[in-house]
Amino acid sequence: MELTQTVNTAGGSVILRPLCADDRNHGIFDLLAQLTQAPPLDAEVFDAILAAIDANPNHFFLVAEDKERPGKLLGTAAVLVEQKLLRAGGRVGHIEDVVVDASARGRSIGKLLVNFLIEFSKDRGCYKVILDCDEQNVAFYKRCGLEKKEVQMVRYF
Amino acid sequence: MELTQTVNTAGGSVILRPLCADDRNHGIFDLLAQLTQAPPLDAEVFDAILAAIDANPNHFFLVAEDKERPGKLLGTAAVLVEQKLLRAGGRVGHIEDVVVDASARGRSIGKLLVNFLIEFSKDRGCYKVILDCDEQNVAFYKRCGLEKKEVQMVRYF
Repeated sequence: MELTQTVNTAGGSVILRPLCADDRNHGIFDLLAQLTQAPPLDAEVFDAILAAIDANPNHFFLVAEDKERPGKLLGTAAVLVEQKLLRAGGRVGHIEDVVVDASARGRSIGKLLVNFLIEFSKDRGCYKVILDCDEQNVAFYKRCGLEKKEVQMVRYF
Repeated sequence: MELTQTVNTAGGSVILRPLCADDRNHGIFDLLAQLTQAPPLDAEVFDAILAAIDANPNHFFLVAEDKERPGKLLGTAAVLVEQKLLRAGGRVGHIEDVVVDASARGRSIGKLLVNFLIEFSKDRGCYKVILDCDEQNVAFYKRCGLEKKEVQMVRYF
């Protein structure tokens, strides 16, 4: 599939594309901070993570950029493809860290991000995608075609 | 940390170690079939998956082998370590596909597997581990130190 796509939304065109090095200065951390703690990373650390992700065909960071304001990021999401032994060596796409900038909500950018990663996962041979979310976001993900299944458990160190 | 460990249980000693090529003939698929569909893989496919996992420091398949019956697998579990940009480039351990053979339940082998993968995740710099489970397994994972947090959503293709 094409990893850079231009999509029309109610508020103007949006470019969906892989995260790149310049995004460190274009608000990727401001976006992620709307989800949880996300202090900016030094360029060296950021570039090393980006290089590792680029080298891994099973890990993908997607961003949505405002076509009218080059460099302005409106949203981001990631997917990690897991290789399993069960299901005949099946694969699962884990969708992570979906966030849309507060200024850009209501334009269906979240749905565009999730749909992109669903297609990406299909393209990588996955038999399903999964994600964990707050109860308050269940309705949104249902609109993306997902349904409630299990319980997420966590242990922080 | 040591990736091969011998542990005493109520029913005899158990070896915790990485999955290896011979395990294809030692019941790994019989184990996984107690969890979900898990048809046996051909040696060629199995070995290719194993090679990819061995080459990836962020993906680990653990097995529990009966020390008294070499080659007899009693349980398995896996962990996939996810690199994030948030939390200062934090990492998360995704624990997957935990299963103990029906003949070996009640010996705390499940807890040994989960605890091993928790230590593995700490060793790889994770700030948390997460997993998804049926409501009926919540009590077990609470005994492993995890707590309920979010809702898992899924879309099958």
